[in-house]
Amino acid sequence: MVIILKNNATQENIDNIKNHLIDFGFQVHESKGVQKTILGAIGVQPDFDTRKIRILEGVADVYRITAPFKLASRDFKEENTIIKIKDVEIGGSKLVLMSGPCSIESEEQIFRLAETVAKSGARILRGGAFKPRTSPYSFQGMGEVGLKLLRAAADKFNLLAITEVMQISQIEVIEKYTDIFQLGARNMQNFALLKELGQTKKPVMLKRGLSATIEEWLMSAEYILASGNPNVILCERGIRTFETYTRNTFDLSAIPVVHKKSHLPVIADPSHATGINDQVPPMARAAVAAGADGLMIEIHYDPEHALSDGPQALLPEQYLELVEELRVIARAIRKDI
Amino acid sequence: MVIILKNNATQENIDNIKNHLIDFGFQVHESKGVQKTILGAIGVQPDFDTRKIRILEGVADVYRITAPFKLASRDFKEENTIIKIKDVEIGGSKLVLMSGPCSIESEEQIFRLAETVAKSGARILRGGAFKPRTSPYSFQGMGEVGLKLLRAAADKFNLLAITEVMQISQIEVIEKYTDIFQLGARNMQNFALLKELGQTKKPVMLKRGLSATIEEWLMSAEYILASGNPNVILCERGIRTFETYTRNTFDLSAIPVVHKKSHLPVIADPSHATGINDQVPPMARAAVAAGADGLMIEIHYDPEHALSDGPQALLPEQYLELVEELRVIARAIRKDI
Amino acid sequence: MVIILKNNATQENIDNIKNHLIDFGFQVHESKGVQKTILGAIGVQPDFDTRKIRILEGVADVYRITAPFKLASRDFKEENTIIKIKDVEIGGSKLVLMSGPCSIESEEQIFRLAETVAKSGARILRGGAFKPRTSPYSFQGMGEVGLKLLRAAADKFNLLAITEVMQISQIEVIEKYTDIFQLGARNMQNFALLKELGQTKKPVMLKRGLSATIEEWLMSAEYILASGNPNVILCERGIRTFETYTRNTFDLSAIPVVHKKSHLPVIADPSHATGINDQVPPMARAAVAAGADGLMIEIHYDPEHALSDGPQALLPEQYLELVEELRVIARAIRKDI
Amino acid sequence: MVIILKNNATQENIDNIKNHLIDFGFQVHESKGVQKTILGAIGVQPDFDTRKIRILEGVADVYRITAPFKLASRDFKEENTIIKIKDVEIGGSKLVLMSGPCSIESEEQIFRLAETVAKSGARILRGGAFKPRTSPYSFQGMGEVGLKLLRAAADKFNLLAITEVMQISQIEVIEKYTDIFQLGARNMQNFALLKELGQTKKPVMLKRGLSATIEEWLMSAEYILASGNPNVILCERGIRTFETYTRNTFDLSAIPVVHKKSHLPVIADPSHATGINDQVPPMARAAVAAGADGLMIEIHYDPEHALSDGPQALLPEQYLELVEELRVIARAIRKDI
Repeated sequence: MVIILKNNATQENIDNIKNHLIDFGFQVHESKGVQKTILGAIGVQPDFDTRKIRILEGVADVYRITAPFKLASRDFKEENTIIKIKDVEIGGSKLVLMSGPCSIESEEQIFRLAETVAKSGARILRGGAFKPRTSPYSFQGMGEVGLKLLRAAADKFNLLAITEVMQISQIEVIEKYTDIFQLGARNMQNFALLKELGQTKKPVMLKRGLSATIEEWLMSAEYILASGNPNVILCERGIRTFETYTRNTFDLSAIPVVHKKSHLPVIADPSHATGINDQVPPMARAAVAAGADGLMIEIHYDPEHALSDGPQALLPEQYLELVEELRVIARAIRKDI
Repeated sequence: MVIILKNNATQENIDNIKNHLIDFGFQVHESKGVQKTILGAIGVQPDFDTRKIRILEGVADVYRITAPFKLASRDFKEENTIIKIKDVEIGGSKLVLMSGPCSIESEEQIFRLAETVAKSGARILRGGAFKPRTSPYSFQGMGEVGLKLLRAAADKFNLLAITEVMQISQIEVIEKYTDIFQLGARNMQNFALLKELGQTKKPVMLKRGLSATIEEWLMSAEYILASGNPNVILCERGIRTFETYTRNTFDLSAIPVVHKKSHLPVIADPSHATGINDQVPPMARAAVAAGADGLMIEIHYDPEHALSDGPQALLPEQYLELVEELRVIARAIRKDI
Repeated sequence: MVIILKNNATQENIDNIKNHLIDFGFQVHESKGVQKTILGAIGVQPDFDTRKIRILEGVADVYRITAPFKLASRDFKEENTIIKIKDVEIGGSKLVLMSGPCSIESEEQIFRLAETVAKSGARILRGGAFKPRTSPYSFQGMGEVGLKLLRAAADKFNLLAITEVMQISQIEVIEKYTDIFQLGARNMQNFALLKELGQTKKPVMLKRGLSATIEEWLMSAEYILASGNPNVILCERGIRTFETYTRNTFDLSAIPVVHKKSHLPVIADPSHATGINDQVPPMARAAVAAGADGLMIEIHYDPEHALSDGPQALLPEQYLELVEELRVIARAIRKDI
Repeated sequence: MVIILKNNATQENIDNIKNHLIDFGFQVHESKGVQKTILGAIGVQPDFDTRKIRILEGVADVYRITAPFKLASRDFKEENTIIKIKDVEIGGSKLVLMSGPCSIESEEQIFRLAETVAKSGARILRGGAFKPRTSPYSFQGMGEVGLKLLRAAADKFNLLAITEVMQISQIEVIEKYTDIFQLGARNMQNFALLKELGQTKKPVMLKRGLSATIEEWLMSAEYILASGNPNVILCERGIRTFETYTRNTFDLSAIPVVHKKSHLPVIADPSHATGINDQVPPMARAAVAAGADGLMIEIHYDPEHALSDGPQALLPEQYLELVEELRVIARAIRKDI
């Protein structure tokens, strides 16, 4: 932590600040310049609230100089985390595709779509059984019945399954049927849920909150890591900005930034980011070109009657065509599907 | 719902769109202009996803013309909701102050601060026992022990108590000790928790999410109302913007907007909005002048050693002085404390 | 400037960084901690691009520790700048009101409104003659004819006049008729115009850009100050956020922040911030309570037929009633109108 | 325009609203539903301020149902605009590269970099002679001397030249030396400058403002088109959001949206969007994959000593390697460089 003193800070002020720093457990270095006096405080704890120093008399500014996350940082672990589930690797040299419907709606639906997923070469089947909906009047998911269908469809086509968990009480039942827990954007800072997922044995895909900074997203990953689960996958799904022609602003520059700051894999979700099917293909291609470790894509053969988010689903044939384009782009940056 | 057709929409397109609308249960009116053909669809359900129409061939744009919330709207209930708890009214002609420490830290602390709260004329004591923290390494609250202290301190000084609930499993224990549930910004779209709180008998103060639009905030209130609890208090606590000199941007214009769109009372929290004590007094005054039904203000007699958010706490004497200013401003807009 | 080195920075990296710093004219201090090595670079120029150091091998992070503005800073000039124009003081103990129509439309209109302005106790008449319009098809202002009317109306009622300048070629003509130049939000970073206005003798009111940080706003003030004009007035008029129920988000917390960082006076414009007349009174009151040095308020006796921004104008009687409320609030914080 | 009436609107209200609409020149259609009465107003002018109706008694909401821009819209002109300058086409099947230094610094510099540009297969040389700088203390460009060097270097290597114009008084001199005018993000709503550029004969590349919506960006294009210049190129260069790990948020989803709403070509500028060289390659690749018609990329052989924006420049060898990757991605979406 670096503390910049005000030009008019008195010796008394400086002594008081130093005493506080020592009380808080820091080692202190003082550096007097012509323009500015600076204190360096060594030994900051990740949870230290720098505003505690900022409010002291004579302080002009305070900068934390270590990231507030540790286990999630590239500093802590230099090589990429590769998460291996059965014969699928996430974060390695292959681009991972997670595809399927927004919600599981029926046996016919999930089996038919699982077949398309397998045909595309994707290895992970997505499908929601518990749905977080903005409106209390919307379809809320099939629950455990849906989970069973998801598992059966995944098994039949040799796919892994991923599904969303919305609350602690659902962890047990979801764990029985899924290979990867998905944590939704609105729960990114549901800290109690993060801690519980940190105590499970299965990987967790953590979606970025609608207005979360990359730092806060990595802090939420830290919660899971610090609770004992090393297998965290990040997922960019768009952030909220002032733009109204698009549902969210897909922050693809988060992909290289995360790869620089962290060792965790990062997946991109163009379906939720754009919210409308004709924008999914260009944004899916862009995400691969930006270096994403994988994509989550929603598909449906009857989007108009889908029980949730139909308008952002690709038709099976659109999806299969897109995957062919993605293969070429992946190869251009030395990846494979 | 109003559907604007493309200039080049064919009769076949139009028939197809109409058939869809009828299938979805709408009555359809067509209006042909020189420039544009417009379809009016009457009978939209609050949960209808307008993108289902937007993706049809020939559609240029779709506008929902009813708010997606109903019970929370001023249309549904014209007069202000006044929530009466014992002898305190929230949403009436008196400005309500909810004051106290960020976290309950000890018996001495909460009693000492409760005394200050009572002295100021405020009627509600705040204090956190379960703390949502961005960092897994930070103080996480005293739990039930803290709740007991909060209740005892409130009772001694004839105050009501408000405290935050973070997850469903805490509802039962918190309900025993509190008069009002507080739902934090990060849980504004924790829909499972909203529904459960909708089934309790005590009022719920719902904080606006960091990047929530006013519409989404009212949709979250709708969840609680639709689950059976009519006593929802809204709380503005700052939104996230690009500005970095302030922690959040305190959106005071949300106050008159909420009063126009909804019958629910709205409280402002300048402590969390600004995050730094010297900005709390001007923003508290501004919130009263903007027409807030009350304020939530954090206080501490030893901010430097507070276990959470000390830097945004006012000292007791600063707080008492501020309340005197607030009285004058409240009277200027025909309110009282 | 403080440079944080990577944990794995080699001695060669460190030497290279130091050499660069010395080349750039800095004095360098090194501080080796257990966790981190830090370099302090003394003597940074306000225009130094810190990214030049950030891209060097071995650098983890770089922090500028002096504000990039100087003449605008409270550090440079501790006492408030009070701008005196004839018998009006801006930035002193009196709240300054600048009122009038959005656009000057006719002799009758500006004289009638000037009379209302004078009656309210306000001392400055606003009115646009050159209008920046988002649409090329909108009314673009009366030009010099309008300026003459503005001046005549101001003189008749003993008011000062303020009007917007949009481009360098307008400065000369506007200077003849106005007492204060107004620089619009969209021109906040029109650097050529800033420099030219810095060479005039009349005060400049600089509106904050729609997405300008407070720092950038002060940097734009710095342009004017550095070009020789010490009389800069800042004006907060709302920033762009994701919220759609309001036109802009009125950032009232900018007021105390500016007062802390700078010695320049700051005015608030609730008319442009909210864009709709029924929100102007609460936000005007809030701005005064937050400590604004003055307000800019648009009025019109026939808003429906106003040639620009009618919907945000107050009727004369609404305006006069509002000013009475503002007087009470101003007194509550020891100001006067 | 569609006007939604309040549930409690009286017949008198409705008649008054209709009379206003007729006065404003609209044809009115009324549609009475069970829940809502709706008025359709046909014949809206692009500059009509819908708030004029919104403020009338009995109005609940107003929706403009035609875009506020016309000439820029895909509705107005269905086929893509292809801008032909000498033997270069912008907006056609070839991906256009505009590369070169941020600022022209010397004869050696611009010639050396022009050689690299030509070698890569790019056809347009960029270089700034008049520089908009946030700080008044920064390098402000070489002016006409720089323009001459730019022209000479472009001619020697058979390239087109593009350079930024900051104010009306620079148009004449810049027009002599450049093939394309570049209008910077901070001037996107400098309406006077837009109009003047609309009267020149050379194409204008219009950068999106830092907080401009796509609609406003197209409105600014409309200014140029409406003034008589049909050759407008749009350029996405990142928008401002709350994220602080990146300089701007590169809004790549703007590319397919612009292609849907407008016939104008759209270029992407990953150098300014990211502000740091190691993020330029992934974002350049992503922009091509998203369907951009071209890229603007900054290069420099000595970034550390560049007079502006050195840290975002690619070295010549990095740039040449990137272009090879871009070729492969371009082919994947059936484009060529």
